[in-house]
Amino acid sequence: MSTDVKEILKSGASITDAALEVLLPGPDTAPHSIHRAMRHSTFAGGKRLRPVLCYEAARMICGHVPEGIADLGSAIEMLHTYSLIHDDLPALDNDDLRRGKPTCHVVFGEAIAILAGDALQTLAYETLSKLPIKAELAIDIVREIAIATGTGVGGTLPPGMIGGQVMDIEGEGTRPTAQQVDAIHRAKTGALITVSIVTGGIYAGAGADTVEKLRRFGQRAGLAFQIVDDVLDVTQSSEQLGKTAGKDTATDKATWPAVFGIENSIAQADELIRDAFAELEEFGPAADPLKSVAHYLVERKH
Amino acid sequence: MSTDVKEILKSGASITDAALEVLLPGPDTAPHSIHRAMRHSTFAGGKRLRPVLCYEAARMICGHVPEGIADLGSAIEMLHTYSLIHDDLPALDNDDLRRGKPTCHVVFGEAIAILAGDALQTLAYETLSKLPIKAELAIDIVREIAIATGTGVGGTLPPGMIGGQVMDIEGEGTRPTAQQVDAIHRAKTGALITVSIVTGGIYAGAGADTVEKLRRFGQRAGLAFQIVDDVLDVTQSSEQLGKTAGKDTATDKATWPAVFGIENSIAQADELIRDAFAELEEFGPAADPLKSVAHYLVERKH
Repeated sequence: MSTDVKEILKSGASITDAALEVLLPGPDTAPHSIHRAMRHSTFAGGKRLRPVLCYEAARMICGHVPEGIADLGSAIEMLHTYSLIHDDLPALDNDDLRRGKPTCHVVFGEAIAILAGDALQTLAYETLSKLPIKAELAIDIVREIAIATGTGVGGTLPPGMIGGQVMDIEGEGTRPTAQQVDAIHRAKTGALITVSIVTGGIYAGAGADTVEKLRRFGQRAGLAFQIVDDVLDVTQSSEQLGKTAGKDTATDKATWPAVFGIENSIAQADELIRDAFAELEEFGPAADPLKSVAHYLVERKH
Repeated sequence: MSTDVKEILKSGASITDAALEVLLPGPDTAPHSIHRAMRHSTFAGGKRLRPVLCYEAARMICGHVPEGIADLGSAIEMLHTYSLIHDDLPALDNDDLRRGKPTCHVVFGEAIAILAGDALQTLAYETLSKLPIKAELAIDIVREIAIATGTGVGGTLPPGMIGGQVMDIEGEGTRPTAQQVDAIHRAKTGALITVSIVTGGIYAGAGADTVEKLRRFGQRAGLAFQIVDDVLDVTQSSEQLGKTAGKDTATDKATWPAVFGIENSIAQADELIRDAFAELEEFGPAADPLKSVAHYLVERKH
């Protein structure tokens, strides 16, 4: 990892953490249990990759990380966290460990974990409704994010994050086709990563054409990220992952290596990143920070 | 119930159902299971009281039910439905029956029920982001609704819907004080009813002073509604309620009659409605439809 991307990741995580600290109700604010549960999972050592992608997309458009954008990054991180809390529940993946720490329902019980996830989703939209930008842009961002985290709108748009989770559940126990794994990954992880980049651009005032370029960049980078995640699940130990390794295989989850093999998966991730970079050609060196973060997504140890 | 209020309730429910039919993905849209689950709970015979209050608040402001407001009413109903789905889960109230029908997790399993609740919350915000009104008003509505359904913002605002659910859980097994029951009711049910009325006013272009009058009206009417609900839980049979009667008492839930007795509770609900009506005095007969719906909330059989 180059010094530059290390610095970008560190600084992006730091402004996100500072914003989240202010946005989340304090641990001694009543009702206590849910606020502690929300904080437990939000401050569990996440790398804030989605917020960082958001900030760097904005920097590419306007030359700097714009004032107040950490609230947008934080809202995205709240949505990511809520999805993890619910995904870890006994009725879903039944995971006791996440990033090396006990999951929300293990510490606070299932009822509070369900409500803490709910409340993080709610707080994300509250946060978006207060962004210090024009109302037209803020409402665009709300719409983009809701679509990216939903189930697909009346069949006219591909499913978002929750849709991907459901497709994953519906497909358990059957051997997934390449097409199914592709659709699940694009929805379950890809959509939120893509919208982080898209809304960073909108926040910074990008025009419609640029937003669509960012969208295509994000779709490719997001898919590459999930492929690498699947590979790491097979090749790394539980200790390295901070969660139960090999779990995807054990539970017959739809994964990229199960369909394409490990070597081939890595090659495809690399190719997706190259395709993603091609979308940003016209931006020249201004795209370097964003590209370096995307590159980091696939060069994580595998 | 007068002919007028019957007609208002019927017509409000009808435009809400028609809008929900369009807004919710069809039962044959993939992924199927979640869309069927969302529809199962959304079309389970709810009276659409919150949407009706929203429409009548708007009518009081601009003289008619404004174009497109059924989408706002539908978004509010989606939020109400999501809260019921999660509230009914085994880890929370563990209810098998709601409005005389099996609850979402009984039919679709816990995993899909959790995600269906999540997705209804997401779809509500997507719907709000597409309201056919000025972006400034739409973003105000998003903020009002997120606050009303959250846990309370950094201790500076009273908790909303989720906060009320948590206070209810935290207080189980202890005899609640009058102050606690009051706080829980205002948060758990009152906040969403209040915001239905407030956002109806905003949608119709009400000024800041009028919005605050609607808020005070809604707070009083919402609390009265929940008091009557508590009374009905004690005095009606399961068949009349469409859910398990006497459940609040059996589970030591914080209820108004448990603290104040049944007769006294009914008297307080009536007084709250009179106080609520006083807030609307300046509107004269234009307030009659809204008042008649509020009156219906407390004159339900008890």
